[in-house]
Amino acid sequence: MADYIPSMDLIEPASKGETWAVARLISRAEANMSEVREAIGEIYRRAGNAHVIGLTGVPGSGKSTMVAKLVHKLRAAGRRVAVVAIDPSSPYSGGSILGDRIRMSDLALDRDVFIRSMATHGSVGGMAHAALDVVDILDIAGFDKIIIETVGVGQDEVEIANASHTTVVVSAPGLGDEVQAIKAGILEIADIHVVSKCDRSDSNKTMTDLKSMLRDGIGHGVQPNWRAPVIGSSSFQEEGFDELVAAFDKHLESLEGEPGRARREQISSFRLRKAAEALMLERFEAQSDFDGAATDVAARTVDPYSAAETLVRNFSSEASS
Amino acid sequence: MADYIPSMDLIEPASKGETWAVARLISRAEANMSEVREAIGEIYRRAGNAHVIGLTGVPGSGKSTMVAKLVHKLRAAGRRVAVVAIDPSSPYSGGSILGDRIRMSDLALDRDVFIRSMATHGSVGGMAHAALDVVDILDIAGFDKIIIETVGVGQDEVEIANASHTTVVVSAPGLGDEVQAIKAGILEIADIHVVSKCDRSDSNKTMTDLKSMLRDGIGHGVQPNWRAPVIGSSSFQEEGFDELVAAFDKHLESLEGEPGRARREQISSFRLRKAAEALMLERFEAQSDFDGAATDVAARTVDPYSAAETLVRNFSSEASS
Repeated sequence: MADYIPSMDLIEPASKGETWAVARLISRAEANMSEVREAIGEIYRRAGNAHVIGLTGVPGSGKSTMVAKLVHKLRAAGRRVAVVAIDPSSPYSGGSILGDRIRMSDLALDRDVFIRSMATHGSVGGMAHAALDVVDILDIAGFDKIIIETVGVGQDEVEIANASHTTVVVSAPGLGDEVQAIKAGILEIADIHVVSKCDRSDSNKTMTDLKSMLRDGIGHGVQPNWRAPVIGSSSFQEEGFDELVAAFDKHLESLEGEPGRARREQISSFRLRKAAEALMLERFEAQSDFDGAATDVAARTVDPYSAAETLVRNFSSEASS
Repeated sequence: MADYIPSMDLIEPASKGETWAVARLISRAEANMSEVREAIGEIYRRAGNAHVIGLTGVPGSGKSTMVAKLVHKLRAAGRRVAVVAIDPSSPYSGGSILGDRIRMSDLALDRDVFIRSMATHGSVGGMAHAALDVVDILDIAGFDKIIIETVGVGQDEVEIANASHTTVVVSAPGLGDEVQAIKAGILEIADIHVVSKCDRSDSNKTMTDLKSMLRDGIGHGVQPNWRAPVIGSSSFQEEGFDELVAAFDKHLESLEGEPGRARREQISSFRLRKAAEALMLERFEAQSDFDGAATDVAARTVDPYSAAETLVRNFSSEASS
């Protein structure tokens, strides 16, 4: 590999917005190569200028189509826009949702748009680091709006969307009971509520339900100086997107001073915790005889909790030697 | 609390199938009370007789209705049946799906049926222990078929369903692209495929798609001496359930000897790993200054990975003192 450029040397061209350098750093961050880690640290310390928008919604809420429309709208307003989409995919064979991404392909030649789809391969926890590292890379590359799109199902997916400055939760009319129940779990992290498919007649009910929930004091997010708006949109009729983009900016303004500091601290705390937990468990598992212990647990001569105690105790005394 | 009975003393009545004792142990296991842990260990060592069936499917696949029908069918065949349903619910305000459970309420007075709905409250990881502890309690209480029902979205939910002797994956016709992609992630853990809603005309396509996938060698699960069948069912027309119950028994037979040993080892390994990881992280977080480190990370003077390194290093040297 004669043309292999060390990751540290990619930081400067990436900072000038050179797509080839950005793409290489992202691929290396996504693969979590050890060579890239020093660069990721340096990039983290330089980043922090972009407006990061987390967008989440249950399956079938139409959020991917919405993101494609948003990208067009933000580009038309002269913004440099990046999208990091976390795709649910097989934990065994891979395979991310290409259809939704392809709808954005008319943007493929626009240098001020960057779209990256990341397949989770069943390990969303690990994905959280990589996705937020990718956001930092896009941040130093000068993208001013970065959208993280996740399916709002599963704790990790919701946490990733919430590790942003502005969290948008997409609701849609006409989903089943079970989907609605899952949705209930994400409404409370919203800074902005969007109801998609407002061309449908049953969308009024969805809007009304959301608004009445907000009147009851639920779903306003956690920021004291902000009340989450409910915005209706139709990707089909291209409605609601100006209002949504305006809400992004309004929410960003609301983060000036203390609210923004609190938000950044919350995101940092999440990233630190994820990184520390992963590192701790990596060390623990490398130094412990999990397989031997599992055999005893399988024979039911010892229960998993006692076996776990023993492993943790052995690890701690190992660390002291 | 004059009538408080220590958990260790509940084991005997629970083993005789006394519902009040079973219910108390389950509530304590679910709350993860420290008093119950010794009893859980003892219960684990006594358990291992029931046939544990994991049943999972994407939202909208009709699996809860299917479980209700299955319970009736298994009861009619003279089996003692228990259901542990892991409900997706708000990570913030709680609120599990009651509707589906209520459909089973006609069984509420049958002593040989036990149905427990567990809300995840956003922490599915922690739920895995509790759910499998509950399965052990039901096991020593003499239930011979125990169904664990989860939404097949998110790594933890899928792992819980897979921590069973027989994993059933429910597919349904007419779900959207995004749901189908999520579904793709769970097909490969199936020992038995069920297509629900076979009264619908578009269910033929779902059956054909699944069968052609199996012909391509995908979706057969991991057990060398077993080929996953595809069973059509209709809860509405009460079709396919005899076949499904027969498939449960046939799969159980296939687990005799080495395949069953391998399966038990895999489940034990999963439970041990979850327990050990939780315990390790609990110790780590109790002894580390996460908040202080997060402040530096928020100020971007240090990146999360370097800060994590420091925390892990400090913990290890702490353990040695």
